[in-house]
Amino acid sequence: RYCYERNLAVNPQGGNTGLVGGSVPVFDEIILSTVLMNRIISFDKVSGILVCQSGCVLEKLNEYVEEQGFVMPLDLGAKGSCHIGGNVATNAGGLRLLRYGSLRGTVLGLEVVLADGSALDCLASLRKDNTGYDLKQLFIGSEGTLGVITAVSILCPQKPKAVNLAFLGCQSFAKVLETFTTCRAMLGEILSACEFMDEKCMELVERHLKLSNPVTGNPFYVLIETSGSNSTHDEEKLNNFLERAMTSGLVVDGTVATDDRKIKASCHAQISDMLWSLRERITEALTHDGFVYKYDLSLPVGKLYDLVTDMRARLGQSAKNVVGYGHLGDGNLHLNITAESYSHSLLDAIEPFVYEWTAGCNGSISAEHGLGFKKKQFIQYSKPSEAVLLMQRFKAMLDPKGILNPYKTLPSSS
Amino acid sequence: RYCYERNLAVNPQGGNTGLVGGSVPVFDEIILSTVLMNRIISFDKVSGILVCQSGCVLEKLNEYVEEQGFVMPLDLGAKGSCHIGGNVATNAGGLRLLRYGSLRGTVLGLEVVLADGSALDCLASLRKDNTGYDLKQLFIGSEGTLGVITAVSILCPQKPKAVNLAFLGCQSFAKVLETFTTCRAMLGEILSACEFMDEKCMELVERHLKLSNPVTGNPFYVLIETSGSNSTHDEEKLNNFLERAMTSGLVVDGTVATDDRKIKASCHAQISDMLWSLRERITEALTHDGFVYKYDLSLPVGKLYDLVTDMRARLGQSAKNVVGYGHLGDGNLHLNITAESYSHSLLDAIEPFVYEWTAGCNGSISAEHGLGFKKKQFIQYSKPSEAVLLMQRFKAMLDPKGILNPYKTLPSSS
Repeated sequence: RYCYERNLAVNPQGGNTGLVGGSVPVFDEIILSTVLMNRIISFDKVSGILVCQSGCVLEKLNEYVEEQGFVMPLDLGAKGSCHIGGNVATNAGGLRLLRYGSLRGTVLGLEVVLADGSALDCLASLRKDNTGYDLKQLFIGSEGTLGVITAVSILCPQKPKAVNLAFLGCQSFAKVLETFTTCRAMLGEILSACEFMDEKCMELVERHLKLSNPVTGNPFYVLIETSGSNSTHDEEKLNNFLERAMTSGLVVDGTVATDDRKIKASCHAQISDMLWSLRERITEALTHDGFVYKYDLSLPVGKLYDLVTDMRARLGQSAKNVVGYGHLGDGNLHLNITAESYSHSLLDAIEPFVYEWTAGCNGSISAEHGLGFKKKQFIQYSKPSEAVLLMQRFKAMLDPKGILNPYKTLPSSS
Repeated sequence: RYCYERNLAVNPQGGNTGLVGGSVPVFDEIILSTVLMNRIISFDKVSGILVCQSGCVLEKLNEYVEEQGFVMPLDLGAKGSCHIGGNVATNAGGLRLLRYGSLRGTVLGLEVVLADGSALDCLASLRKDNTGYDLKQLFIGSEGTLGVITAVSILCPQKPKAVNLAFLGCQSFAKVLETFTTCRAMLGEILSACEFMDEKCMELVERHLKLSNPVTGNPFYVLIETSGSNSTHDEEKLNNFLERAMTSGLVVDGTVATDDRKIKASCHAQISDMLWSLRERITEALTHDGFVYKYDLSLPVGKLYDLVTDMRARLGQSAKNVVGYGHLGDGNLHLNITAESYSHSLLDAIEPFVYEWTAGCNGSISAEHGLGFKKKQFIQYSKPSEAVLLMQRFKAMLDPKGILNPYKTLPSSS
């Protein structure tokens, strides 16, 4: 309210782990930090519904609900520092979306401070509520441009009793795709993640982070996770799938970390962490490789890797590395291009080519990271102009002075 | 556009199966029927994404995707006549919500005709898309008051290979609750429905529909469905749960329909249909019992049945039957009161008591059926006034002439 009366612009900031500069001030905005709003308000053990303030760190929340037999419905590489408020404001996807769905389904309520300083209480803790329009949805994924999220009510699934991992090597992307459809059919309801990375990613995590690859010499790697309520059943399903994948030549080599081997639980956790690190720490490895051009795209799963191949051919020697990895099960590619340093001509070779390519197969130019400051001008590649106009009308209605996270998400109206 | 220019009011109508009069004209609105818009536009067998026009009947869509190895993510008693457009417009819940989540997660895109006759194309077919605000969410559950849904893109889960049912009798609601938490823990990822009904419901389906109850003489009945990818594993999980439930006295009697008995598939289907009928045809049985006062409430699951008990005590002899059933797993109670005929004094005894009771435990006065015409004046029991005001501003912005499904969902602004 103070800022509204004085026409002061506000930039909400949580863990500041975003990709597109959504939480970084552009000119002279006041940073509104949620770091002190880190209180858990309530947790219901019967329903699994957690209510907390927006500044809670995702990993801390997960530790808290795990003690009560539940898990958070989302998990990301940045979990150690990202805030739940920022996760909701950006509609974060992450590693568990395949299993537990998007935040649009699991977030049950929000408390939001509007541009004029008034609080909007939509902090319901009900699985079902069809009384009027679902206002909270507008704030999920709006990157702080329509209101500042101050509290979140979220549905947590039960903690799985058994978690198994398989890390597999494939000889082609076609075999990666077939591995995905086979594991989806054979693992069914226990499949909780299906991630892929190419050999360039693997080279970078080996070189820069000194991680060792247990399954060497393949152009592609697939990480499959199962989460279930019965370790014997889960292991049997996983073994059946692995046998099929091996005998049919989909997979040439692999390693597994299963729960009920005759090994210590701590040892199982160590192997799992090691396998997940290969995938989760790619981002970190890339930063050691030079300047990174980052893209987060939704594409039809069959075409997911064609863009990486095309981009590699297009850039040739002008890029240091062109790598592709991501959430296979969600059709979400993380395309990253590294160079010794930033170069305007390299950027021109990448953009708008990458957006045109994506728009050409009706993909999304931002699958899970939002538009923020860096990508707002490219929204037309994924949304028709009438939709962008309508978004601008919502923005004008909810934030008439334009003080909430300005210069973000939407292109300036013309 | 024709109607907009001439200030003519429009009432969208699909299968006309709603509970609250959302699809019934009030004064002299033009009925805009979607019955001829019944074309399937596309189906992707890899991703399971269906794109279709809004007038497709839910059951027909389910038959279509089942042939390709998938199922619709929602299922309701009215499936034979309700339209997918109406399901989305009312954010319908139904029998599979426990497993596959709400339409807010499974609907990936919409095409909507706005009040001025222009079409808004948000018909994306991507699991993840964070480019700007998620406009489609505003139309989900807005009951045709903000726009008319003309096409839907929706994510279909894989068809389960094994479906098992258990129909159980419990001696108290406390045991019903404990049965639920036990089955959720032991059946985990394969639990796909957990429904309950009281003995009054059972009496009505037996009396009016001549259905026979396989598990007689209990005050409460619980129907549990599992859906999974491995019939041996599923049956083992179900048997383990049943053994626990029986030996610990949670359940006194029960019958099961499992997939891999040595009986014909057709026979299994028959038994399953019979058990589901007991639950799904309660609505029909009630209509044979006289005039029905219907309530669809979200409550904390522990208090779900207290309202039925309180209402029965409050109404005494003035009501013919007071019955409770619903979706236990979602905390959703269907409270129904029958009488020989409509009576204003009986209504006064029920309302606003039922809404005050619900508001008293932060419940929702409409869990899955919307507000329509009949309940719009009661929105304040579930939403604060600033939220209702904001909804009215959205309505005024998107439908300035108030021609879209007037007199519905929101109270008239004062």
